[in-house]
Amino acid sequence: MINNYKAKVYPINPHEEQIIGYKCYSSVLAINEDIELAIIAVPAAHVLQTVNDCVKKKIKNLIIISSGYSEIGNKKGEEELKKILDKNNIKVIGVNCLGNYDAHTKFDSMFIPTSRLKRPKPGYISFISQSGALGAAILDLLAFNDYGISKFISYGNATNLDESDYLSYLSTDQNTKVICMYIEGVKDGNKFMKIAKEVSLKKPVIILKGGKTESGAKAAISHTGSLAGSYEVYKAVFNQCGLIEVSSLNEMFNLARILENTIKPKGRKVQIITNGGGYGILGTDSVSLNNLKLAEMYLRTKNELKNKMPPLVSVNNPIDLIGDANDERFNLAIDKCTKDNNIDIILTLLLPQTPLITENISDVISKLNDLKKKPIIVVCTGGVFAQKIKSELESKGIPCFNFISEAVYSIKKMCEYYKID
Amino acid sequence: MINNYKAKVYPINPHEEQIIGYKCYSSVLAINEDIELAIIAVPAAHVLQTVNDCVKKKIKNLIIISSGYSEIGNKKGEEELKKILDKNNIKVIGVNCLGNYDAHTKFDSMFIPTSRLKRPKPGYISFISQSGALGAAILDLLAFNDYGISKFISYGNATNLDESDYLSYLSTDQNTKVICMYIEGVKDGNKFMKIAKEVSLKKPVIILKGGKTESGAKAAISHTGSLAGSYEVYKAVFNQCGLIEVSSLNEMFNLARILENTIKPKGRKVQIITNGGGYGILGTDSVSLNNLKLAEMYLRTKNELKNKMPPLVSVNNPIDLIGDANDERFNLAIDKCTKDNNIDIILTLLLPQTPLITENISDVISKLNDLKKKPIIVVCTGGVFAQKIKSELESKGIPCFNFISEAVYSIKKMCEYYKID
Repeated sequence: MINNYKAKVYPINPHEEQIIGYKCYSSVLAINEDIELAIIAVPAAHVLQTVNDCVKKKIKNLIIISSGYSEIGNKKGEEELKKILDKNNIKVIGVNCLGNYDAHTKFDSMFIPTSRLKRPKPGYISFISQSGALGAAILDLLAFNDYGISKFISYGNATNLDESDYLSYLSTDQNTKVICMYIEGVKDGNKFMKIAKEVSLKKPVIILKGGKTESGAKAAISHTGSLAGSYEVYKAVFNQCGLIEVSSLNEMFNLARILENTIKPKGRKVQIITNGGGYGILGTDSVSLNNLKLAEMYLRTKNELKNKMPPLVSVNNPIDLIGDANDERFNLAIDKCTKDNNIDIILTLLLPQTPLITENISDVISKLNDLKKKPIIVVCTGGVFAQKIKSELESKGIPCFNFISEAVYSIKKMCEYYKID
Repeated sequence: MINNYKAKVYPINPHEEQIIGYKCYSSVLAINEDIELAIIAVPAAHVLQTVNDCVKKKIKNLIIISSGYSEIGNKKGEEELKKILDKNNIKVIGVNCLGNYDAHTKFDSMFIPTSRLKRPKPGYISFISQSGALGAAILDLLAFNDYGISKFISYGNATNLDESDYLSYLSTDQNTKVICMYIEGVKDGNKFMKIAKEVSLKKPVIILKGGKTESGAKAAISHTGSLAGSYEVYKAVFNQCGLIEVSSLNEMFNLARILENTIKPKGRKVQIITNGGGYGILGTDSVSLNNLKLAEMYLRTKNELKNKMPPLVSVNNPIDLIGDANDERFNLAIDKCTKDNNIDIILTLLLPQTPLITENISDVISKLNDLKKKPIIVVCTGGVFAQKIKSELESKGIPCFNFISEAVYSIKKMCEYYKID
């Protein structure tokens, strides 16, 4: 067991006798037991010899962290390596990658210490990233926000296993509900199209392409050796294959959190519930401008709410529970809206600065959310208290955002994915 | 002195003898000294009597927190109140407002306790908000992120002083460099146009309009009694008056932080410096897609950098300092770029997960930024360590963002404001 991951670990280094308390071996050939996986992090000049040792030891799975191949113009070296791997039926993640992480099993081959890169808790979003540093920054940010993740795969140059293989693998992974991908190029177009089409029918796949512009594509060559190709072609392929394309990393994970946590809505009719008038107005504008519909609740719902609410509460869309709203007023409003079939999605804009909102608000909302009648999405803006509520809501499976614009745009993309008119 | 604000305070309440240790008076008329400002927070039914007392006491400045006027259809009540105010030459902030805050003097009339709404530290952005709750949430979030503010004015129904008056006031305020406004409607179109045109020549004014859509406009009526009017007309007015329109609150404050802190760039040629290849590519794409130009550094700069950098560092645009970058490599790259006249703006994409970046990086960047040769804008993504660096950079006057998309979009808007081709 190492860092909570249950495995026997054998450090290999010709100059050491022990590494962090483990007996060190001069080569894999010096180990008496069978080896399932070797992680190689030696200078490029020594990779070939190390791989040859693995061949002799009949190790079939490798992660090669080492760089110094296509990304610096050394295509020959990478081709030579690939030949040996393919010939011996060895599967490799890498070369030129950061390593991988599984939040459920705690398998962790990333070479960045936890003091710099906090590992996210278990969740159901998996992230395939051609770029290691980008992936590391995002994992660190996700952990900071207390969001969960399933598997993180940094694959660098895709020497032998490529993005399509990872996509295919994650499609059958029980702990993966949503797949996020950052790619610079695709290794094998036909293979990618075939697999992406199949996978996107099973699970949402959100994709961000690096190197869309001419200058970006040029930069990609010196990064992972990828030929970024014509973006117009990529765009068409993503669309044909049912992948959800996003234009930034924050868009990607905002949408992923909604798809991870909510059920499919019946339509695009959104009801806004708020305790802040201005937020209600901005929410209403945003819903209208993002091709969503403002729900019109049944007269019965309206009358029931009016009967139970103080006279100054405005029961329309938005429902404005006004400045002296308490948890119970939110409870009542959300409860009635979950039961109204004219409402498909509930967008709760919660401003917890007003004194009558208590910490219990997250329980109130999560109990109604547990009925799984329709997606409930929350915007909660503010400082320490707001972030605490946000964190509690997230841990109870309710997507919660800092800003209205982030929430509504993600709802729009969700409806597009589900092809809801 | 109350809450660090230097003032004599007289609580008024007919039923109390003391309030938080201060002697309580039955009416303003019972006070022997002259009064500069009265803050009125009584039920609407008692406002008129209270204002009449203030008239008798010759108080010329009021903040009226009380609601119950146009926003609930009581136009008559508000007109009656306005008549008395105008006749006696009394200036009022409100009715139906949250109160106001000045981070420099510590004047604070907001009725939400600091346990729920943390007050931001002193800074140079002022925020005029027709909506109180929206303003409160944003202030709380700004304080949480350790951003500063100058004055916050929540003005509600604009019974007698309106948005144009506040704009005019802030244009001459020494502690205000950037003005942010959230409005639902404009009280007097001609007055607004005249003042806005003048002010926007002196200081950047960033504006967000609530009630752009038909449904949003309907919601605005029951919020602040505003007739939101045709958005097309507003849009044209904002444009004619040189106001910078944004479409969300995060856009507003992202841009405000750049305008508050950086100098005007000479052009729109952006140089990207990063230690993460994928981030460099996304940054390059983003710069190209946002109508900015990728700088092409002088050959001399390129050669100087190449001579001092390890061979794997890519000296182009982006400059990729690669995974083993240390603080000194950033120092060298930013220093050379500040001296290259072919570069107008430096966008530093910093991924502090890699172990050779230390806490000193914020000092390194801020020393170069202090030379004020060109705008330096930073993206720093990640958890605790990244947020610490971000916070230190911000406190040293360097705008720092979590995501590339936020930074580049704000740079684009800055260039639009400065009319840079």
